[in-house]
Amino acid sequence: MVASLRLPSLTSLLFPATTRYPATFRRTVCLRNRPLSGFATAPSGTASPETKSTEVDRLRSDRAVTPRSQDFNAWYLDVIASAELADYGPVRGTMVIRPYGYAIWEAIQDYLNVKFKETGHSNMYFPQFIPYSFIEKEASHVEGFSPELALVTVGGGKELEEKLVVRPTSETIVNHMFTQWIHSYRDLPLMINQWANVTRWEMRTKPFIRTLEFLWQEGHTAHATPEEAEKEAKQMIEIYTRFAFEQTAIPVIPGRKSKLETFAGADITYTIEAMMGDRKALQAGTSHNLGQNFSRAFGTQFADENGERQHVWQTSWAVSTRFIGGIIMTHGDDTGLMLPPKIAPIQVVIVPIWKKDTEKSGVLSAASSVKEALQTAGVRVKLDDTDQRTPGWKFNFWEMKGIPLRIEIGPRDVSSNSVVVSRRDIPGRAGKVFGISMEPSTLVAYVKEKLDEIQSSLLEKALSFRDSNIVDVNSYDELKDAISSGKWARGPWSASDADEQRVKEETGATIRCFPFEQTQGTKTCLMTGNPAEEVAIFAKSY
Amino acid sequence: MVASLRLPSLTSLLFPATTRYPATFRRTVCLRNRPLSGFATAPSGTASPETKSTEVDRLRSDRAVTPRSQDFNAWYLDVIASAELADYGPVRGTMVIRPYGYAIWEAIQDYLNVKFKETGHSNMYFPQFIPYSFIEKEASHVEGFSPELALVTVGGGKELEEKLVVRPTSETIVNHMFTQWIHSYRDLPLMINQWANVTRWEMRTKPFIRTLEFLWQEGHTAHATPEEAEKEAKQMIEIYTRFAFEQTAIPVIPGRKSKLETFAGADITYTIEAMMGDRKALQAGTSHNLGQNFSRAFGTQFADENGERQHVWQTSWAVSTRFIGGIIMTHGDDTGLMLPPKIAPIQVVIVPIWKKDTEKSGVLSAASSVKEALQTAGVRVKLDDTDQRTPGWKFNFWEMKGIPLRIEIGPRDVSSNSVVVSRRDIPGRAGKVFGISMEPSTLVAYVKEKLDEIQSSLLEKALSFRDSNIVDVNSYDELKDAISSGKWARGPWSASDADEQRVKEETGATIRCFPFEQTQGTKTCLMTGNPAEEVAIFAKSY
Repeated sequence: MVASLRLPSLTSLLFPATTRYPATFRRTVCLRNRPLSGFATAPSGTASPETKSTEVDRLRSDRAVTPRSQDFNAWYLDVIASAELADYGPVRGTMVIRPYGYAIWEAIQDYLNVKFKETGHSNMYFPQFIPYSFIEKEASHVEGFSPELALVTVGGGKELEEKLVVRPTSETIVNHMFTQWIHSYRDLPLMINQWANVTRWEMRTKPFIRTLEFLWQEGHTAHATPEEAEKEAKQMIEIYTRFAFEQTAIPVIPGRKSKLETFAGADITYTIEAMMGDRKALQAGTSHNLGQNFSRAFGTQFADENGERQHVWQTSWAVSTRFIGGIIMTHGDDTGLMLPPKIAPIQVVIVPIWKKDTEKSGVLSAASSVKEALQTAGVRVKLDDTDQRTPGWKFNFWEMKGIPLRIEIGPRDVSSNSVVVSRRDIPGRAGKVFGISMEPSTLVAYVKEKLDEIQSSLLEKALSFRDSNIVDVNSYDELKDAISSGKWARGPWSASDADEQRVKEETGATIRCFPFEQTQGTKTCLMTGNPAEEVAIFAKSY
Repeated sequence: MVASLRLPSLTSLLFPATTRYPATFRRTVCLRNRPLSGFATAPSGTASPETKSTEVDRLRSDRAVTPRSQDFNAWYLDVIASAELADYGPVRGTMVIRPYGYAIWEAIQDYLNVKFKETGHSNMYFPQFIPYSFIEKEASHVEGFSPELALVTVGGGKELEEKLVVRPTSETIVNHMFTQWIHSYRDLPLMINQWANVTRWEMRTKPFIRTLEFLWQEGHTAHATPEEAEKEAKQMIEIYTRFAFEQTAIPVIPGRKSKLETFAGADITYTIEAMMGDRKALQAGTSHNLGQNFSRAFGTQFADENGERQHVWQTSWAVSTRFIGGIIMTHGDDTGLMLPPKIAPIQVVIVPIWKKDTEKSGVLSAASSVKEALQTAGVRVKLDDTDQRTPGWKFNFWEMKGIPLRIEIGPRDVSSNSVVVSRRDIPGRAGKVFGISMEPSTLVAYVKEKLDEIQSSLLEKALSFRDSNIVDVNSYDELKDAISSGKWARGPWSASDADEQRVKEETGATIRCFPFEQTQGTKTCLMTGNPAEEVAIFAKSY
């Protein structure tokens, strides 16, 4: 059970050893074919702007991670290791979320927590141990989840009378408690959320995307009418959609799941579907209209205004650490991670550059002033003033970490009272602007404008990539062509579950959703030729 | 296993039914001996200031919870239920933390998170499943924790080859990962923290104080020298101490644990000990100097500046949801919870009072303006403008919830452009001030001053209670007298572990700590008459 799953060896990392920088970087030295020994012995902090660019070019010519185009999966795992986002835990399929990865999760939490509270939800906490009998109460729920359960059978040295499920999701225990809190229509709506860990015994795991244990938020609400529950389920998928677009620059497609893909226990599942860099779909968040399925199974009732007992109408909705995987696979490139400014734990890194010791204090003092000015203006900024690393090394390190903007300050910049600003999303000289004034109001305005530009630019790029990889299809043959060329297929669909199953078996693609945004006009089912109400989107997925 | 543990029936709650207020309140109607039927049928929101005070007196004469002096434990459980802090989960000994209780936890998190980051720690997340073999690696650790473990033995329908421990604490898995991240002295110090759930299979449970699963933060650090580890361990207990004093108004006594009471696997355990309202001690937070115990067990080594391999020196430190129990049992009274303003999710509740419909809009509009002014000034304020409840009912409800200040606004207050302000910590008329101007700057200044006063006053009261219940003792007889009269005993101690064990067996008291603050002068061990370096504090504890 232990240590059976490991990150693949890092194929081509290039950074020298002795350092207080991350272990993954250091260890790779042993793995490298061509150690750049000059770096390890370079006098500390002494790269001039001149030597720097040569060095950077040299570093750039030696890839830090497996090229994305060569092996998307290896690239993904390399980026996670090299950008220090996560490591595998000792138990198969578990993941340690490292500080940099966790900081992205905190940024996700900070945004969503505010939105949840603004829309009337309160945070709380339910126990993670659920009596096994609870899981069995809702028929489709047990069918969906029982193969994935982790069971506690021993507690305090004794075999337990009833085995306990480590929560895979909390609808059952939530309903058990709701029956104690809900009595009349005046207790409704009851709208809560919890931030928690959940466990699903997955066979094929992948960091962030599918792990035995992951972190998420799960919202649970109870309402007096089906209309209210439906409105809530839609409101939450809308919040997720805006989060994805506005914060993470991921142009998700919101829509409704097909019956086959609906959550075990829900009447309707709404989803946001994202296209990753390899054009596979990622389900990035879901919101379920649970109808009365759980309230009937658990007897969650209220007295309506006429004093009659009714079962409540419910929703549940969740976003998880999987979203971090989505951010990596949407924006990352061969240089590493690329973070949208709004979600980036560090938005700007300042790299001071000096050659002689006489230059050092002037450069560092200017760098500190710039840091101070940006910090005061609310920019998340890091000054990398260690002298154990060359500027070139630092450039690569922070590019790997996906920092949106880099500010370089050398002796000549200090003399001219200006800085050099480099964009992470535009490689090389094209992304570099010289002579930006250090004067705080000018610099702050410039930096904020650039961060906004990067945010928009990442979204536009992802949007154009997404749209150029969705093919409108009108027949099964066209669908098969689209899927086999790695694209998404969008076409009218009113065929049976069996037909949907057949598409899955024959092409590997599933219905990702019936998108909310539908084309006008009459539609003919691509499979049956019958009239169709809606287009569906088919794709291979994670 | 299911539903074997329940909150005791709420002995004397008094509030009427039909309401969108909490279920615990409503259900109690069925339990009441003398239903105050007049309340249930009172016209909505129509209590005048006159009828109100009579009503309040009547309500006050009928206790909302078991009196604290009568049965401290029943009082504690009643407060938790009535103030809607928590409920029991379906599995024995588990707890559901309800929104109001969770909001207190969020306030604790908000404060500590900032302090942890200011002192250089990063948040991250470790898996909760730990291979059983890890627990066995550190000898005293396995001895301390093995009786309390919950074990996962089945995953995905299959018996696991190695059973997994649901983390009771994370030192073992942290060390397993540290060995992969720590290589040279440049990687040190490594300072991290996680907010997580932990599981300990406790036999005797009590909400917040001791539950099968609880929430906490656990900090873990690794250092190059024993001096640095010691400094870190002390720094963290100092942060906890200041948190307790300044935020929660709990005058904890910081000190060092005796060898017998030291954490399983630590060299030294520092603790903060709080005196509860029943004069039992509560260990409210601990910080451990782990020495090299775990680094030796796991081989967590670094190359020092001379290139020699050394084991790292470590600390760990934790505060949990138990702190919420400490707040309840330090400040609460017969009326219910009493929250220190700095930690209160709601600092001020505004209760509008009107008799005639013609008065309603004026009163509500004034109440909204007051709310707006306070909110803008950063005060956490709630306007209870429901018309389903009488003002008297609301007074009691929010007093039960421990809101530090109440603002009452009636028609005559609107005419005089003033409000009535009542302090939760001073019962009745004495805590009530009439005619405070509604003018925003005046009112805001007044409210902030009062909140500060309440914060100080709660601390002073707790401090004086604590100090009047600690007895300085110089012999075992004096110690026994102090303990049997329910007090804490403080006296010089240099006796053996066996003597300490004997005190425990004979009096029920343990050494809570050797306090950092020591009296001057020569000391003679109260037990042996030998010279003693320090005084120890003995008490019965939770």
